[in-house]
Amino acid sequence: MTRRVQYEELCEILARIFESVGTPHDIALLLAENCASCERDGAKSHGIFRMKGYVDSIRSGWVNPAATPRIEDVAPSFLRVDARNGFAQPALAAARSLAIGKARKTGACILTIRQSHHLSALWPDIEPFAEAGLIALSVVNSMAVTVPYGAKRPLLGTNPIAFAAPAEGRAPFVFDMATSAWAHGDIQIARREGRPLPEGIGVDADGEPTRDPARVLDGGALLPFGGHKGSALSMMIELLGAALTGGQFSTEVDWSGYPGAATPLTGQFILLIDPALSGGNPFAVRASEFMTNLSAAGLHVLPGERRRRNRAENLKNGIVLTDEEWEQLMTLAPIPGENANAILER
Amino acid sequence: MTRRVQYEELCEILARIFESVGTPHDIALLLAENCASCERDGAKSHGIFRMKGYVDSIRSGWVNPAATPRIEDVAPSFLRVDARNGFAQPALAAARSLAIGKARKTGACILTIRQSHHLSALWPDIEPFAEAGLIALSVVNSMAVTVPYGAKRPLLGTNPIAFAAPAEGRAPFVFDMATSAWAHGDIQIARREGRPLPEGIGVDADGEPTRDPARVLDGGALLPFGGHKGSALSMMIELLGAALTGGQFSTEVDWSGYPGAATPLTGQFILLIDPALSGGNPFAVRASEFMTNLSAAGLHVLPGERRRRNRAENLKNGIVLTDEEWEQLMTLAPIPGENANAILER
Repeated sequence: MTRRVQYEELCEILARIFESVGTPHDIALLLAENCASCERDGAKSHGIFRMKGYVDSIRSGWVNPAATPRIEDVAPSFLRVDARNGFAQPALAAARSLAIGKARKTGACILTIRQSHHLSALWPDIEPFAEAGLIALSVVNSMAVTVPYGAKRPLLGTNPIAFAAPAEGRAPFVFDMATSAWAHGDIQIARREGRPLPEGIGVDADGEPTRDPARVLDGGALLPFGGHKGSALSMMIELLGAALTGGQFSTEVDWSGYPGAATPLTGQFILLIDPALSGGNPFAVRASEFMTNLSAAGLHVLPGERRRRNRAENLKNGIVLTDEEWEQLMTLAPIPGENANAILER
Repeated sequence: MTRRVQYEELCEILARIFESVGTPHDIALLLAENCASCERDGAKSHGIFRMKGYVDSIRSGWVNPAATPRIEDVAPSFLRVDARNGFAQPALAAARSLAIGKARKTGACILTIRQSHHLSALWPDIEPFAEAGLIALSVVNSMAVTVPYGAKRPLLGTNPIAFAAPAEGRAPFVFDMATSAWAHGDIQIARREGRPLPEGIGVDADGEPTRDPARVLDGGALLPFGGHKGSALSMMIELLGAALTGGQFSTEVDWSGYPGAATPLTGQFILLIDPALSGGNPFAVRASEFMTNLSAAGLHVLPGERRRRNRAENLKNGIVLTDEEWEQLMTLAPIPGENANAILER
C-alpha cells in the first residue's frame, strides 16, 4: 500500500523531526527541504531513507546541528567556511550570497567548506547557482568505503561530483554522480529489497568480488566506476574535498565513539564561474544548442531531466510513499502518527 | 631494430619539421618540446606518431602555425585567449604568467582558449602549474567521434580531462585521461599493430559494437568510459571547452575542405587554484600524506608516476624508437636521413 504526501507537508514533518533532536528551526527547515527535495525528485537514495542517519548522528553527539558556520573571506575569489562540526548545507547557505557576488565580480569563486557533515545529494547545492546564471561544480569526500583501482583496501569515499550550467529557455544541465560504481545509499536500498548487485560494483571483506549487497556493506567495499579513470577522479575529489578545504580525508573519519553516526565529517569544494564573461555567443544559448543536439542524437533524457520530470509530477500529485516508508518515518517523528496524519489532512 | 635518440636531439628534429612547413622558430620549438615530451614519457599516442597529423594540418592550410594569440584580460579571475586558428600550446604559453599572477592574487583563475588546435596530451599543459605550486584542471573538446551513452550517433569528442596538484617532497599528482573509453591515438596504434580492441570501446558505422579498430576509425565511433557517468563528464567538457571558451563544439569541427587535417579546432578550459589559501595544514603536505596512504593501500603506481619513471629512464638512456618509427619521422624531415643522423651523432 502507498500514500501520497504533498512536498510542503513532507518538509514540515521532516523539519519537526530535525527540531525534535535539537536542530534550530531555520536549520531544521533547510535540511528538511533538502531531504524532501531528494524524495520529491525521485533521488530516493538521498530522500527520507536517510532520516534515520541524520537523527542517529545528531543523537550520538557526532554532529552539532546548532553549529554556527564561520565564514573566512580570504581573497577576491576564494571563500572558506568552517562548518564547525555542523551540516554542510547551512554552511553553504551562509556563504552563498557572498560567493555569488565574488563570482560575478571576478569571474570565478572557490568556496571551500570544512568540518562539515554532508549526507545528501549534491545537486540541491548547485542547481540553484545554475538557476542564478552561474556554472557550478562541486565535489565532496565521504568515508573510506571504496578501493582505489589497483589497490587492496578502501581509501576513498563514494566521492560524488556534480556539475550544473544554465541553458537558455530550458532547465539547467545538471548531473550528480558518485565516483564509486554505485552510491552507498543505493547499495543499502538493494540490501533492504533483497536485490543482488550487478558485477563490478563491490568486494567483500576479503577483497573478493561479490554481488551480495550485505557482504559489501558489512566489512566489504565498493569499487570505483570506470576502473582507473573513476579511481583517479575520486582521488582528485579527496584532494579538493579534504586537502584544499582543510577538512578530513575519507580515511580520517572516525565515528567509532558515536554509535549510530552516519554523516561523514569531511569537506566540500564548490567552484562558481560567471559565464557572462565567456567569449563568443552567450553561454546559455550555446548550452541550449548543445542540449538540443543531444536530443536530436537520440538521447531521450538529458542530465537532470528525470529529476525535473519527477518534480513536476510529484508537486502536482504528491510524493508516493509506501506504508513501510511512512511507518519508518513515523518511528522518528516527535508527533504521534495520527497527528502527523492530521498535518497531511490539513 | 631500434635506436635510442636523446630528448634534446628529438626536439631539434621535430622543431626542424615544424619549421619546414612554415612554423616560426619559437612556436616550432614549443610544439617540438611538447611532442618530444610525450614520446619521452611513454605517452606514445601523443608522441612522434602525431607528427604526420601536425604536418598535414599545417600543409592543408587548416591551422595557421604562425598565428599570434590575442589575450583578453576580462576580469580579475578570468582570462580569455583567442588562438586565432593557431595551436593551443603557444596560446597557453602567451597567457601563462598573467594567469598565474591572477590565481596568486585572487585565489583562482579561469583561462579559456578558443579557436585553438590541440592534438597533444593535456598533462604537459598543467604539470608545470603544479610544479609552480598551483592546482590545475584542464579539459579540451575535440571532434565528434564518441556516442553519448544512450544516444545513437557521435556528438562528443574524446574530450580529455586532466588534473595536477603539488605534493610536498615528491612529484605532483597528475592524471590525464580521455572521457572516451580509449584515446583516439590508442585506437590508431591498435589498427597499425593489428590488435583487436577489448569489448565496450567502440561501435561500427551502423552503431553496432565492434572490436576491430579499423571499423571504429572508418565511420564508426568510440563509446564513453564508465557508461552514463563518463558520458556526462564528456558533456561537461563540451560545455566548458566550447560554450564557455567561445570555441566550437566537437560536432562543429568541419575540416572537410582541408585534406589531411587532423587537429581539432575547438577550445580549452583551464582552472587554476592557489592552494596557499586552503584552510588547515598546507595543501601540498596533505596531498603528500594522501599519496603515501595510496601507496600503503597497495597502489604501486600513483597517477603521473609511470610518466615520471619513463622520463627519468629516457632522459638517461635516450628514447627508444623503432626503425619504422624513425623512417616515418624521416619522411617528414626537411633534412635527408644522413643529416638527421648527423644531428644524432653530434
